Amino acid sequence: MILTVTLNTALDITYRVRSLRPHASHRVSEVTERPGGKGVNVARVLAALGHEVTVTGFTGGATGRVVQERLASVPGVVDALVPITGATRRTIAVVDDRSGDTTQLNEPGPTVTPTEWSAFQEAYEDLLPAAAAAVALCGSLPPGVPVGAYAGLVRTARSAGIPVLLDTSGEPLRRGVAARPDIIKPNADELAELTGSHEPLRATQDARRRGARAVVTSLGAEGLLAASPEGRWRAAPPTLVRGNPTGAGDSAVAGLLSGLVEHLPWPDRLARATALSAATVQAPVAGEFDRGVYEEWLGRVTVTGEVSAA
Amino acid sequence: MILTVTLNTALDITYRVRSLRPHASHRVSEVTERPGGKGVNVARVLAALGHEVTVTGFTGGATGRVVQERLASVPGVVDALVPITGATRRTIAVVDDRSGDTTQLNEPGPTVTPTEWSAFQEAYEDLLPAAAAAVALCGSLPPGVPVGAYAGLVRTARSAGIPVLLDTSGEPLRRGVAARPDIIKPNADELAELTGSHEPLRATQDARRRGARAVVTSLGAEGLLAASPEGRWRAAPPTLVRGNPTGAGDSAVAGLLSGLVEHLPWPDRLARATALSAATVQAPVAGEFDRGVYEEWLGRVTVTGEVSAA
Repeated sequence: MILTVTLNTALDITYRVRSLRPHASHRVSEVTERPGGKGVNVARVLAALGHEVTVTGFTGGATGRVVQERLASVPGVVDALVPITGATRRTIAVVDDRSGDTTQLNEPGPTVTPTEWSAFQEAYEDLLPAAAAAVALCGSLPPGVPVGAYAGLVRTARSAGIPVLLDTSGEPLRRGVAARPDIIKPNADELAELTGSHEPLRATQDARRRGARAVVTSLGAEGLLAASPEGRWRAAPPTLVRGNPTGAGDSAVAGLLSGLVEHLPWPDRLARATALSAATVQAPVAGEFDRGVYEEWLGRVTVTGEVSAA
Repeated sequence: MILTVTLNTALDITYRVRSLRPHASHRVSEVTERPGGKGVNVARVLAALGHEVTVTGFTGGATGRVVQERLASVPGVVDALVPITGATRRTIAVVDDRSGDTTQLNEPGPTVTPTEWSAFQEAYEDLLPAAAAAVALCGSLPPGVPVGAYAGLVRTARSAGIPVLLDTSGEPLRRGVAARPDIIKPNADELAELTGSHEPLRATQDARRRGARAVVTSLGAEGLLAASPEGRWRAAPPTLVRGNPTGAGDSAVAGLLSGLVEHLPWPDRLARATALSAATVQAPVAGEFDRGVYEEWLGRVTVTGEVSAA
């Protein structure tokens, strides 16, 4: 069992319109809805890879009910969301039929009370023994949750002896790294913000010195860069991938986590994460991955690097 | 008791953003939600005027549940919505903080099955005896409902001896008018589409010849034009009103209906409809009316016209 934490769960709604024009009225031709937030996306990919996953975080209001109803229909995913008074946020992606471009509208999400945050921490501690394989802490913090939240959740997992991956940004990442997570997975911008360096190789090394055991940096269409005590690698897809990058980072996290709990060597984990990420960019539905593309590309990802001296 | 029919109910969501830019990501600073669809808006204003109102139409899915939860908290409004399998639609109004302009995104709404349409017609017939005072048929038809739907509902109400107001457009209006409703309330564009004439005075008379007993045409900020067997009138607000016209037409319908069931003479009905409409345009929240403005303006609306020879 793997546990994913999404403190800022969402209902992700996609609208298709002919062409979005400010201050005009638009008829939406197609509406799709699915449970979202980064940890929920990671869980969906892990489940599709055959792993049992428990999802926790917060749920509230009518939108929270919809998120839970939809999660209940995803095989392999167990809902352990913690109820709160505020309403779960919606995100709306308005896709232009003409250009394929997306306009994003993100609701602020509920404010979590101190009592609700305490209840979550208790639930998390209770879930950890069952989620013996690994924990992923994903996404931004909702209002009301302290900025050091992830640092605390990292420490709790480490005390329980469970490997923990942290995928967030800004100050929550900075504080979380200091608590020594097993893996962080920033993109180049998030890594630059953390380390002050815009040179990914140097910044990846620097992030390890700040406390992360392993750092996997997403270089977008160019693949992944990884530094761990076992070595340093670069993983690249066979060709430059075009498409919608929504969810590509979450698929990479799922690839890394599944590789970790299956005890794969780092190059195999990185190949899986890169192929899943590329298969997500190429999928027709934002955030889904194309299994055919994934299986075809898995053997064609190039991983180069050096293993550390033991 | 007054009955309002909204076949295309909605949850009206308003988002505030700093400035909507296509293909960018936006943080929504404020979210407001309320039950919508024209007949629901009419019912809310009637209830605020002290009338008992029953709301019918369709409700379905998670959004329908939210609409019903919210309706339950409106004093004076009774929920008699008919359940369907499809999900009630959402409308999203994105308001620019900078310009105050609104971008509208309207979901298509559920398709109503023939069985569901039959169930609605039965429910409507059952509700009519209790709604002895008046019926309002409001808004567009959802997919699956036959284009002659309003014509049938007008006939049913007339057979029961209950006065019926029809507020729709296009072919449903054309067919509905032929069934001889007591009042129709088109705006100038809808009236021109119905009659082929862009001259409101002539078109209003023409619409009466097509079957409507009384025609009240909205001239936007310039007020209302009315033609009935009792006479012809023009009602104008004291000054040109600036603001958000959302819901102004629905407030006018509520003014006309409440005046009808209170047996007010036509000039008083028109003054009320005009003052309510202006008070809606001036209200800070779209679709609400400002009671202070309404009460102040009620006595200052100018109604000019001629009474027909008996």
